Amino acid sequence: MSSDGSNDGEHRTSYTTAGAGYTRDARYITTRITRDGEDGYPVEPGRYRLVAARACPWANRTLIVRRLLGLEDALSVGLPGPTHDDRSWTFDLDPDGVDPVLGIHFLRDAYLRRDPGYPLGITVPAIVEVSSGAVVTNDFAQITLDFSTEWTDYHREGAPDLLPAAHRDEMDQVMRRIYTEVNNGVYRCGFAGSQESYDEAYDRLWTALDWLEERLTSQRYLVGDTITEADVRLFTTLARFDPVYHGHFKCNRQKLTELPALWAYARDLFQTPGFGDTIDFEQIKQHYYVVHHDVNPTGIVPKGPNLAGWLTPHHREQLGGRPFGDGTPPGPVRDGERVTAGHSPLA
Amino acid sequence: MSSDGSNDGEHRTSYTTAGAGYTRDARYITTRITRDGEDGYPVEPGRYRLVAARACPWANRTLIVRRLLGLEDALSVGLPGPTHDDRSWTFDLDPDGVDPVLGIHFLRDAYLRRDPGYPLGITVPAIVEVSSGAVVTNDFAQITLDFSTEWTDYHREGAPDLLPAAHRDEMDQVMRRIYTEVNNGVYRCGFAGSQESYDEAYDRLWTALDWLEERLTSQRYLVGDTITEADVRLFTTLARFDPVYHGHFKCNRQKLTELPALWAYARDLFQTPGFGDTIDFEQIKQHYYVVHHDVNPTGIVPKGPNLAGWLTPHHREQLGGRPFGDGTPPGPVRDGERVTAGHSPLA
Repeated sequence: MSSDGSNDGEHRTSYTTAGAGYTRDARYITTRITRDGEDGYPVEPGRYRLVAARACPWANRTLIVRRLLGLEDALSVGLPGPTHDDRSWTFDLDPDGVDPVLGIHFLRDAYLRRDPGYPLGITVPAIVEVSSGAVVTNDFAQITLDFSTEWTDYHREGAPDLLPAAHRDEMDQVMRRIYTEVNNGVYRCGFAGSQESYDEAYDRLWTALDWLEERLTSQRYLVGDTITEADVRLFTTLARFDPVYHGHFKCNRQKLTELPALWAYARDLFQTPGFGDTIDFEQIKQHYYVVHHDVNPTGIVPKGPNLAGWLTPHHREQLGGRPFGDGTPPGPVRDGERVTAGHSPLA
Repeated sequence: MSSDGSNDGEHRTSYTTAGAGYTRDARYITTRITRDGEDGYPVEPGRYRLVAARACPWANRTLIVRRLLGLEDALSVGLPGPTHDDRSWTFDLDPDGVDPVLGIHFLRDAYLRRDPGYPLGITVPAIVEVSSGAVVTNDFAQITLDFSTEWTDYHREGAPDLLPAAHRDEMDQVMRRIYTEVNNGVYRCGFAGSQESYDEAYDRLWTALDWLEERLTSQRYLVGDTITEADVRLFTTLARFDPVYHGHFKCNRQKLTELPALWAYARDLFQTPGFGDTIDFEQIKQHYYVVHHDVNPTGIVPKGPNLAGWLTPHHREQLGGRPFGDGTPPGPVRDGERVTAGHSPLA
């Protein structure tokens, strides 16, 4: 989705509502791309293009899972820039501001191709059918699950099982709590329209972070002993925590760097191929601080925090774990998909 | 001064100017209260009332020095609440919203008593002559120096020498750099009206903080081996750093808690009588987050950061130093002058 969660009739000019708490609009285009094509969109290499702004945590999930599973050849990617106006994410980083495959500047055009009266938010991630230029789905929570279960014929050799059947029930519980309390919880803090709703959101968030800190003190990954979809989902919020959520969203009881287990866990994943190499800290900061003008009217983007710590040793190997299970790490990032130099301690 | 530095014709409704850097208006009422009374205002116990909002870092200096020197009996104190509108600091915390000695609600009334057309900012600290109800001085930089040098007849027994003659030249140099680069430097970050002016302010601030971190790694206090006025001046900014300047003013390369020497130094002072017992973290946060509505339009006050660390051992005794030189620590805080319970780890 648009990382601001602005799924309520185009993008918003205001993200907070005076006196009110924040509620995410959860209506998406739920068409699925499946092996059997029951919704009219079968899995087929080269047929679709994933549109995923690096800035957006929900889109970031798709970039990570696509890398981990090795779907680069089967599913190309378009990368809108970090900022947008109240109309649409745009391909402003591409030559002439146009996505080279879809031939559009405004991602909105692909939504209108699907539905000329499309009434909801212009969100990323979105998967667009290249031939028709129309959005097939923007149902962010389903997209990565389908990458794991429907696109299996096109996984790379050594692709990990991100949804291990033996742990699926536990994963669903953990992912549900992470979604409501953490992934969305930081937005509930940042877009609170009253002190009371903020205070409540803050307490909910930190209750969940304390739970995660304790859970990850004694185990390397969230569920089982391998990297799963649950780790992907937590990681994208943790990567944005100190650069954005701590200050901009007032999630400031502590920095991530002050939570020993979570900080080591986040570094462990960041240093794992497929995770850190998708993170563009500059785009992340640009997005939140520029787009949410009612939270940050000056539009000034902080220079901090110092990010060098992301590359320090995390010592999580001492907890055991088999990062990719019976699989292997993904290979190098493709040409043309690397994070801009200087935008990350890795780049 | 008003802690927002709004000394440019009453209080401001806007603290940032689009496209422009921040420049502090440094015009004050420079009348002095002296031993010889050459400006018409001789030092005299009971004749004056210090007005000093706990929220304001410039006023905080006066509260600390008054405590360290033991001037409580000679100079009473009035404490405006943390927030103010564009007219004036007010005594909204006092019964019926009126200062019990001055009998006014708006501090502005004391400025207008001095000059019915007073054209500048209604700032704290201010010293008011009780009999006339008129402000004598709001020259914050001079007030604490005069406490040390002009009010000596009323210092407590064991009062420290905060301006040791042997170190005065070095102190002046250090205090000048701390004022321009740190005390005012954080405001230059927070009230920058352009990315360029912010970026420049941020680099200046961190250059100075790196200098201080290095300086304080090997010596307990800023100058000499005792607490001086220079320490008071640095401390008031450090106390506000994580609760306010890090997020609200985007001074976010690191938290104070991530700068080992400065954090231990700040804790050392905080735990020294006369320093931490003047700090009201809740009032500090209320002030900045509520008053600067163009920086924080929602007016929501963050619940963080966790402040328990202020009371942890600092181990600075290992660097030697004689906190009060040949003097002694001040006694307990007076009744009626204690920080509100729950507003500080000490209270």
